[in-house]
Amino acid sequence: MIVKQDQSDDRVRKVCVVVTARPSYSRVRSALYAIQQHPKLELQLVVAASALLDRYGNVMQEIENDGFQVAERVFMVLEGENPTSMAKTTGIGVMELSTVFLKLEPDVVVTIADRYETIATAIAGSYMNISVAHIQGGEVTGSIDEKVRHAVTKLSDIHLVASENARQRVIRLGENPDQVFCTGCPSTDIAAQIAADPELDFDPIERYGGVGKLKSISDDYVVVMQHPVTTEYADSRRHVEMTLRATSQLGMPVLWFWPNVDAGSDGTSTGIRSFRERNDAERFHFFKNMSPTDFLKLLLGSRCLIGNSSVGIRECAYLGVPVVNIGSRQSGRQRGLNVIDVDYDEIEILAAARKQANHGRYASDPIYGDGSAGIKIAEVLATCQLSISKTLSY
Amino acid sequence: MIVKQDQSDDRVRKVCVVVTARPSYSRVRSALYAIQQHPKLELQLVVAASALLDRYGNVMQEIENDGFQVAERVFMVLEGENPTSMAKTTGIGVMELSTVFLKLEPDVVVTIADRYETIATAIAGSYMNISVAHIQGGEVTGSIDEKVRHAVTKLSDIHLVASENARQRVIRLGENPDQVFCTGCPSTDIAAQIAADPELDFDPIERYGGVGKLKSISDDYVVVMQHPVTTEYADSRRHVEMTLRATSQLGMPVLWFWPNVDAGSDGTSTGIRSFRERNDAERFHFFKNMSPTDFLKLLLGSRCLIGNSSVGIRECAYLGVPVVNIGSRQSGRQRGLNVIDVDYDEIEILAAARKQANHGRYASDPIYGDGSAGIKIAEVLATCQLSISKTLSY
Amino acid sequence: MIVKQDQSDDRVRKVCVVVTARPSYSRVRSALYAIQQHPKLELQLVVAASALLDRYGNVMQEIENDGFQVAERVFMVLEGENPTSMAKTTGIGVMELSTVFLKLEPDVVVTIADRYETIATAIAGSYMNISVAHIQGGEVTGSIDEKVRHAVTKLSDIHLVASENARQRVIRLGENPDQVFCTGCPSTDIAAQIAADPELDFDPIERYGGVGKLKSISDDYVVVMQHPVTTEYADSRRHVEMTLRATSQLGMPVLWFWPNVDAGSDGTSTGIRSFRERNDAERFHFFKNMSPTDFLKLLLGSRCLIGNSSVGIRECAYLGVPVVNIGSRQSGRQRGLNVIDVDYDEIEILAAARKQANHGRYASDPIYGDGSAGIKIAEVLATCQLSISKTLSY
Amino acid sequence: MIVKQDQSDDRVRKVCVVVTARPSYSRVRSALYAIQQHPKLELQLVVAASALLDRYGNVMQEIENDGFQVAERVFMVLEGENPTSMAKTTGIGVMELSTVFLKLEPDVVVTIADRYETIATAIAGSYMNISVAHIQGGEVTGSIDEKVRHAVTKLSDIHLVASENARQRVIRLGENPDQVFCTGCPSTDIAAQIAADPELDFDPIERYGGVGKLKSISDDYVVVMQHPVTTEYADSRRHVEMTLRATSQLGMPVLWFWPNVDAGSDGTSTGIRSFRERNDAERFHFFKNMSPTDFLKLLLGSRCLIGNSSVGIRECAYLGVPVVNIGSRQSGRQRGLNVIDVDYDEIEILAAARKQANHGRYASDPIYGDGSAGIKIAEVLATCQLSISKTLSY
Repeated sequence: MIVKQDQSDDRVRKVCVVVTARPSYSRVRSALYAIQQHPKLELQLVVAASALLDRYGNVMQEIENDGFQVAERVFMVLEGENPTSMAKTTGIGVMELSTVFLKLEPDVVVTIADRYETIATAIAGSYMNISVAHIQGGEVTGSIDEKVRHAVTKLSDIHLVASENARQRVIRLGENPDQVFCTGCPSTDIAAQIAADPELDFDPIERYGGVGKLKSISDDYVVVMQHPVTTEYADSRRHVEMTLRATSQLGMPVLWFWPNVDAGSDGTSTGIRSFRERNDAERFHFFKNMSPTDFLKLLLGSRCLIGNSSVGIRECAYLGVPVVNIGSRQSGRQRGLNVIDVDYDEIEILAAARKQANHGRYASDPIYGDGSAGIKIAEVLATCQLSISKTLSY
Repeated sequence: MIVKQDQSDDRVRKVCVVVTARPSYSRVRSALYAIQQHPKLELQLVVAASALLDRYGNVMQEIENDGFQVAERVFMVLEGENPTSMAKTTGIGVMELSTVFLKLEPDVVVTIADRYETIATAIAGSYMNISVAHIQGGEVTGSIDEKVRHAVTKLSDIHLVASENARQRVIRLGENPDQVFCTGCPSTDIAAQIAADPELDFDPIERYGGVGKLKSISDDYVVVMQHPVTTEYADSRRHVEMTLRATSQLGMPVLWFWPNVDAGSDGTSTGIRSFRERNDAERFHFFKNMSPTDFLKLLLGSRCLIGNSSVGIRECAYLGVPVVNIGSRQSGRQRGLNVIDVDYDEIEILAAARKQANHGRYASDPIYGDGSAGIKIAEVLATCQLSISKTLSY
Repeated sequence: MIVKQDQSDDRVRKVCVVVTARPSYSRVRSALYAIQQHPKLELQLVVAASALLDRYGNVMQEIENDGFQVAERVFMVLEGENPTSMAKTTGIGVMELSTVFLKLEPDVVVTIADRYETIATAIAGSYMNISVAHIQGGEVTGSIDEKVRHAVTKLSDIHLVASENARQRVIRLGENPDQVFCTGCPSTDIAAQIAADPELDFDPIERYGGVGKLKSISDDYVVVMQHPVTTEYADSRRHVEMTLRATSQLGMPVLWFWPNVDAGSDGTSTGIRSFRERNDAERFHFFKNMSPTDFLKLLLGSRCLIGNSSVGIRECAYLGVPVVNIGSRQSGRQRGLNVIDVDYDEIEILAAARKQANHGRYASDPIYGDGSAGIKIAEVLATCQLSISKTLSY
Repeated sequence: MIVKQDQSDDRVRKVCVVVTARPSYSRVRSALYAIQQHPKLELQLVVAASALLDRYGNVMQEIENDGFQVAERVFMVLEGENPTSMAKTTGIGVMELSTVFLKLEPDVVVTIADRYETIATAIAGSYMNISVAHIQGGEVTGSIDEKVRHAVTKLSDIHLVASENARQRVIRLGENPDQVFCTGCPSTDIAAQIAADPELDFDPIERYGGVGKLKSISDDYVVVMQHPVTTEYADSRRHVEMTLRATSQLGMPVLWFWPNVDAGSDGTSTGIRSFRERNDAERFHFFKNMSPTDFLKLLLGSRCLIGNSSVGIRECAYLGVPVVNIGSRQSGRQRGLNVIDVDYDEIEILAAARKQANHGRYASDPIYGDGSAGIKIAEVLATCQLSISKTLSY
């Protein structure tokens, strides 16, 4: 492990966090606050990729409302929503982010999770001899994400993992145990705040618009958030239709959140639009985006969450919200008692949704963090060794 | 592990090998022949990056002389030879290679070793749902290469490793043991051929030109091949000067091979040019490139090899050529008895070079292959499962 | 003027036409047919940029229905819809199209009109020593298009212009008169076909879907097509609202066509969506796309066309359809008696729309072509000198 | 013409000058000084492309020695030196420069002359709604440069031309005469300084190194600077060999300057290296770069300049240095009595070189400027209207 010599001193470290999507922002918000407030750290926030695009829920406004200053905006998504355009997007990302890093001269760049653009940050940082810190490594799921996540781990110098399981896996991947820190997932920090003040004090439709025939939201509603699964492009329309049909039979209001950009989102989008055109869908309302806080409040008040979002695994473990988790997207991730797993199957989804809707809240489970992940992340970044080179520990 | 369904049938598999540098070509030549001749495989050879550039030894002529057809040429090296331009080169590589893969529609792409462009092939292949095979994973060295090599392993579906040690490491990195194949390094195939016909039957200066005052090559000469070490950019000039000074005191002809492109090659180049201008250097001759076969013959006839090339570790293990290995570039790689490791230090280098020059040939050691690696690689590619998705094995 | 020597012989010429947007395709369709059928020409059709994107009306299906084979698809639109992403899109276009031209080896590349991506084709062709033919040079309008159009003229070797006025301007720009051909605009070829068979033999809503409360289309309707004006980004929302308010007072069904991608389309889109949400809009129907033939039939049956589309200037001149042309986008283009020009002003638009709706059809005017432009273009491409270098004629 | 409203006020204008090659820097140095010193202007100097590369004479050191601060460095040259890599370099340039302009927010970008990268500045500036000023438009030469130069004129808003002939041509190209300013070429400003202090007060070999057998420079020497001609790629080796052979028969020392990067430079480089290896070449010395001032002093002291550099046409007109101008590169440029034009022919070159070497200095001719071009350029940039949109004046 080569430790950068000029890092041993006492000066403030510049921490460049690259946010490429709405869910990533939600997930790290508490860490951003903690970095911003840490006396030994300077936050450089870069907003990139689909986080900048209106149609996937432009997160810029939220970021500014939250009081953060954006150091750079990086447009890098090549339109097309197919495997080739995803690959090229990553290539463009490497080109653009290396310019940003040259300008900002961070001491450490922080990359989040496992989206396909995430690796662009890790590559640009690595080649430019900047320490790379990775939030949320060591988890096991399916799909292309799995390749990307562990490749990012191998490009990273500092690992900020969400659970003890994840820490063990990163170490088994040959990383130096001294550089692997179990901080919990910062997304649970927001969950902890919400749990402390659970009242739904706003009207979601009034505040966030969206489309649908639902006039207002009563007590008994379910929430759906279902992302396309990247390497199963052709199936994404069928997948979304299963969930649409199942939830339309639930007899409760369905608050549906539009997925973020990915190859396959097209099949998903078409499926939703087609369903709306051909069905009455009077109990459905479709949201494009929502602040993470408001979204969690809405979740906490719901009968259950249906779909394949990691929110069901993480935040809902803390919150005790019942979850129907569909398909392979979250497979391999440790889960609490609050989750029922089902296949892309109308009947399975419906049965599980009914069961969860009737169950009521589960007990809170701290497997993904105790509500102080952001503070722990900032502290690690302020005190860890900023290495830029390493060898396998075996 | 998701296995592509249409791969189970009996049709010929299209294997796209991306060669990005002269040494990579040398290393895989026997595998290329074996793929070309295999009845169940079709070779698609892509020549890219510095392999296309005259000043680093354009390998195109050699490839054509060897009877291969080049499917695509990909210019992707952004000039500058600094960390930013290396990062951007990788980004351009992803953009350009994804176009190539879209056109060639290979069943599997093969990426070689650990150069910074190598990961571009792995990323483009992964995102485009093409199986990625990696030659030479699982090794341990220093520098940025270390990050890239293991990240490429995590993006790859099929692993064609050089030694048993490497196989164990790839498996510990969480790869499915059924997809990790110890084929040996194809570079030892050439070494095996050379060892069978060792006579130096050509005049290297006459055939390859180059510059220097040496008129002819006598029996007692040494060979130098020293690459800049990527993350130690500023030191590369000092490094090369240590070797220049040490070898100028050896009292033997010195056949020096120009390094391939990398950040830092500039310090190296300047060091060499400056040395030539200020010194008499009458026993030095500088070559820009040489066919792999001729180079190994030259090595086999030498008193020893000095520098930090992997040839010293691999081919020379098989050939029994004494090696003075300088610095950290090969650290962590298993080595035979033929290697003495030294630091970037004029006195250490000189002492080790004298010792090795006096020792004579060592016994052949098959740790990196028995001369049939190319054939084994082709056989694996023809018969293995072409998966495109995977999960950690732990 | 340097004429490529190997072009003088008798072999078939490869003509690569790059289509980057739905309107461009409509405009050149008759030329594509004529090229495809010409015995001395081989058509290489490249579909690129927004022509590939679903949300701007994916033109691929139409192209295939029309019986053309697509040689290459080029994804090049960087998301963001702002001036920076437009510039970068052009840069990506040059990179990607040069790969395409290297592969297809055309004798001549054809670029169309004045969109911002158009210049990417001209630059890639010029640098690669391929003759560049430009359709629709020499026209005068406002905005960034004006810069791009004449810059493309200066990069082009062969000019296929729509009107005598345009021919005179291209020659005044210093082009060799022997290389400037007044073929008419191929868009008028479709208009000529439609005029020969004007019956509206389909239900547009049934065939093309779209959104709106209008159930069916009666005899008295107007059509709106209003594009954002690129250098007036901030004003695009206000512009669209003027037209929305004016047409909502017309008392007739309004068939509104969604604009194609451009910086500013966002303001336009937001304006439309917001209008629909806040107003009853019961006489509005919004279409995303329509085949050029069906669109012209719909136009021919309308009371008038409102907006800033070039269709109003060209095809409607031939068809005699009354036009209310808003703002500066078409300024400088020669026009027939069928056009009334107005400013972005609710009252002006409404007054002119009422006048035109009451006027009825005008006499046909051949200023932009007599219905044989496609055939003339093909003939020029088959017989002209394929130069690649030139000097000013003064 | 749309004039940016906020430009009418009295604030300091930010002028971003993009220098992409050594000769461009030399040419505009006096303008850079004048901009830097102008009270109403702020200079933003961007160094890009081959101006950053060591092997074509890294101009960074010179720039810093001259006291300029470099705002941004842009690596954009894709290695390969062929038409495809030139096109892609331009594409990369557009992508990278648009990032730079977004960051620097200049009021006007200045692009110089007609190199292939020049148009990248003009495109990025145009799309980003920044006024574009072009130095050295309106000239007539051959090759791809001709296309690029006039295309840049059509993308530019302000024209700073070198001669009255050039001014007339730019106006005939349809530009608004009020925006076309005949400032003279700033390269003549340096010539004017040199002419005032002509003594060769340094030893070029001692100061600039280079390679060759010449020990010192006597009074009677010639200077050669010959660039490859871009669209005649295959011929560049033959071209350089004609000049090498002719000058080797002159019987005088030959000071040869290495050409800057361009497609074809490879043929040129190989030709030179091959000549040096096979010939005695005892009267040759090869320089890689030289400060513009020193270069002009060396020229002023020479018997004549041989090659195809624009220096022969411009600066030498002012200085009265005899010139042998080879081939078509400068064809169409107005010239003084000091120039003899010849073809790529050993005998013609030799005869003309002998004639010029015997002639002695010609009278000074101010056709390209009177020595105050830099000051005039700065004054125009400080006071002109900063438009961003325009229409043809006819």
